[in-house]
Amino acid sequence: MSKFEERTITSKHIFEGKVVNLQVDEVELPDGKRSKREIIKHPGAVAIIPVTKENKIVFVKQYRKPLEKSLIEIPAGKLEPGEVPEVTAKRELEEETGYTTDNLTFLTSFYTSPGFADEIIHLYVTKDIVPLQELVDGDEDEFVEIMELSLEEAEQLVKEQRIHDAKTAYAILYLKLQGLN
Amino acid sequence: MSKFEERTITSKHIFEGKVVNLQVDEVELPDGKRSKREIIKHPGAVAIIPVTKENKIVFVKQYRKPLEKSLIEIPAGKLEPGEVPEVTAKRELEEETGYTTDNLTFLTSFYTSPGFADEIIHLYVTKDIVPLQELVDGDEDEFVEIMELSLEEAEQLVKEQRIHDAKTAYAILYLKLQGLN
Repeated sequence: MSKFEERTITSKHIFEGKVVNLQVDEVELPDGKRSKREIIKHPGAVAIIPVTKENKIVFVKQYRKPLEKSLIEIPAGKLEPGEVPEVTAKRELEEETGYTTDNLTFLTSFYTSPGFADEIIHLYVTKDIVPLQELVDGDEDEFVEIMELSLEEAEQLVKEQRIHDAKTAYAILYLKLQGLN
Repeated sequence: MSKFEERTITSKHIFEGKVVNLQVDEVELPDGKRSKREIIKHPGAVAIIPVTKENKIVFVKQYRKPLEKSLIEIPAGKLEPGEVPEVTAKRELEEETGYTTDNLTFLTSFYTSPGFADEIIHLYVTKDIVPLQELVDGDEDEFVEIMELSLEEAEQLVKEQRIHDAKTAYAILYLKLQGLN
């Protein structure tokens, strides 16, 4: 048992959506008192750092309704039920960038908002991408714009606070520390 | 107007909680079609990298109910209504670590899950912390354990995938690239 584990007394399902579910758990705290935890259940996601032959990273610029603005991000998308993350990663790369790959390298996984959500993101890099011969249709409600930047240009955007997305900023620094080649 | 902006047609409030609210917006897409967006509203949060005189970073280990396990994280907490982030940062540092500071340096802000939530985290560093004379009471439903690690030890935990929290992993790499001194 984890230290400070919180035992579930009741779990109330509030909402089931396309992307997230919401439940409120009543928990017993380590001191025996009770509290409530609002929990967002998410299917998990992948994010991919696609690197072209010219050593440019392919980013997507996408409108994010929760923020009412567009962000520069690496390609990403959520897992379909039962799907292996590598399959999601290849599909999202194809749909969002028009590139494909048969050579994804897993880097790391991380939780984005562990205080209230169980979303995990599996991060991949591919330095072996080729343009698709035929474009595939993406999610019909997703509109993205492509940007290709060198690692140095991307790092500069992080420093200037023009990359506002945590997974993207983390991925850039991860790649920087690992070295691109 | 942002490119690919999604115009709100209707906004339905589903849930109002202590930490998050949930709404479902019907939106008009750039091609005129309609879709739904599930949106978690969050008050925003701060995270702090506290560095001791001995150049150790102070981490907290905390049980995270959405994941049913404990994570190693930097101290963090959500903004109270109308609160200036620096005030939140000082309070969370005191409550979670028993250290205080009058010298917080803002590093950057980032969105944790822009696909479905508006949570923003403001990241601070302080290299000027002193133990509180009298411990302050934290949130009564929060139980944390302190760990002090060098930047090198922390970076090693990121490499070994023993840091699973995105903000913490990002903060460590950010500090590493910036240099601790």
